[in-house]
Amino acid sequence: MASLEERVAQLEATVANLNDHIAIRQVIASYGPTVDTADCTERALKLADLWTQDGVYDIGGFKRHTGRADVASAFEGMHFEMIPEGCAHFMGLPIVQVDGDAATAISYSAVFRPETDGEHYYPWRISCNLWTFARVDGRWQIAARVNRLMRGDKDTIDMLRVIDTIKAEAQPK
Amino acid sequence: MASLEERVAQLEATVANLNDHIAIRQVIASYGPTVDTADCTERALKLADLWTQDGVYDIGGFKRHTGRADVASAFEGMHFEMIPEGCAHFMGLPIVQVDGDAATAISYSAVFRPETDGEHYYPWRISCNLWTFARVDGRWQIAARVNRLMRGDKDTIDMLRVIDTIKAEAQPK
Amino acid sequence: MASLEERVAQLEATVANLNDHIAIRQVIASYGPTVDTADCTERALKLADLWTQDGVYDIGGFKRHTGRADVASAFEGMHFEMIPEGCAHFMGLPIVQVDGDAATAISYSAVFRPETDGEHYYPWRISCNLWTFARVDGRWQIAARVNRLMRGDKDTIDMLRVIDTIKAEAQPK
Repeated sequence: MASLEERVAQLEATVANLNDHIAIRQVIASYGPTVDTADCTERALKLADLWTQDGVYDIGGFKRHTGRADVASAFEGMHFEMIPEGCAHFMGLPIVQVDGDAATAISYSAVFRPETDGEHYYPWRISCNLWTFARVDGRWQIAARVNRLMRGDKDTIDMLRVIDTIKAEAQPK
Repeated sequence: MASLEERVAQLEATVANLNDHIAIRQVIASYGPTVDTADCTERALKLADLWTQDGVYDIGGFKRHTGRADVASAFEGMHFEMIPEGCAHFMGLPIVQVDGDAATAISYSAVFRPETDGEHYYPWRISCNLWTFARVDGRWQIAARVNRLMRGDKDTIDMLRVIDTIKAEAQPK
Repeated sequence: MASLEERVAQLEATVANLNDHIAIRQVIASYGPTVDTADCTERALKLADLWTQDGVYDIGGFKRHTGRADVASAFEGMHFEMIPEGCAHFMGLPIVQVDGDAATAISYSAVFRPETDGEHYYPWRISCNLWTFARVDGRWQIAARVNRLMRGDKDTIDMLRVIDTIKAEAQPK
């Protein structure tokens, strides 16, 4: 039978893993309000701080950005103009796998915008996201986010099939 | 090196925080099925029980309600009539910050309603929500929920920028 | 005052419960990417592995399936054809109640599909789900999922009122 010392050490490992699970969900969730208030370069740079220094944001239908300054530049222009019109970046329930100081997640995201007549909203972009995270200086940051529109492209379906390897590991012990 | 006693005390604090994180997500999630079954005064009062005795529900485009009876009154009439037509209150992934017996959260919410031709649905309201919670008698309750439509209003964008102060604290230790 | 031994035993129970809460959210979340990549019988069977051997999937507007092979058969034909067009199964924030090796959850789900003109998306199905789970061989599996479109049907509203009994228990101790 395990000693009290061993049981406490086991608890510490399990609780650290649970903390990581919650923390990564917080990072994903915080993307929404951070992007939906990014209407200038200063705010876009704040948004890019969610990424690691050399983090990647590969945006389906747009382009691949590398490093915080380049990630921030993705929002110059079109995105800044969307803020005063209203837009909302919903993040769906993620599946998260934590492995030490790295983590992987899959989630959907939806961007809603107001109809032009000012009544109601429409789903503008419906995407899947493959996220990798790194714990840097004690804070979970986005190492890479690959975002793809759900339009049935073979590459996108293949990417989503990462779910096969995540599921098996995704139930914390 | 920490004694076993100190390590157990640390675990107790961390685990209590994790419990609070899950509990607050449960309160937010339970708003949906509770409001979508509120078709009479009795059910509206049950819904209002999610709030503290003097809790606030400030509904974008409608009005500010204070106290459970007043919160319940927000659903009289128009909302009751929506239930037999079908409506669904989706709650997005929240960012939660717990501080003792108080907590703050930001999340999006979406209300979907069936199209009038009976086929498919449309997003009727897409909102952001700034929540504050209080632990009263051992149960997390809504102290205030400020709900605002995502239409690009400056006040709404300013409210969402609370994310700047929440993010820093949002990764449980 | 509790002994260190008693405090460690209490922590073990609480942490096991938190693990179950996260694990069940992972199962619900993994439905999305698994169904949205199910374009053939082999993949449909993989999807059905989320269920217990004799699990039930009762799909609103369609039919009730029992057992993994029958659950997999629900996706033959129409669903397979939707994959190359693009479809996304979003899972809303669930309310979860764990009771030993069984669990119950309520959540909403949304299926988005691209508009036929290739621009934007529309919410095709907006449903509520009453889930029961069983821990079998150490893995949480779906014992039953009852899915109902949110169209105001009395039976659906009655089903959602299970929320009354879940809420009281839903805040882990």
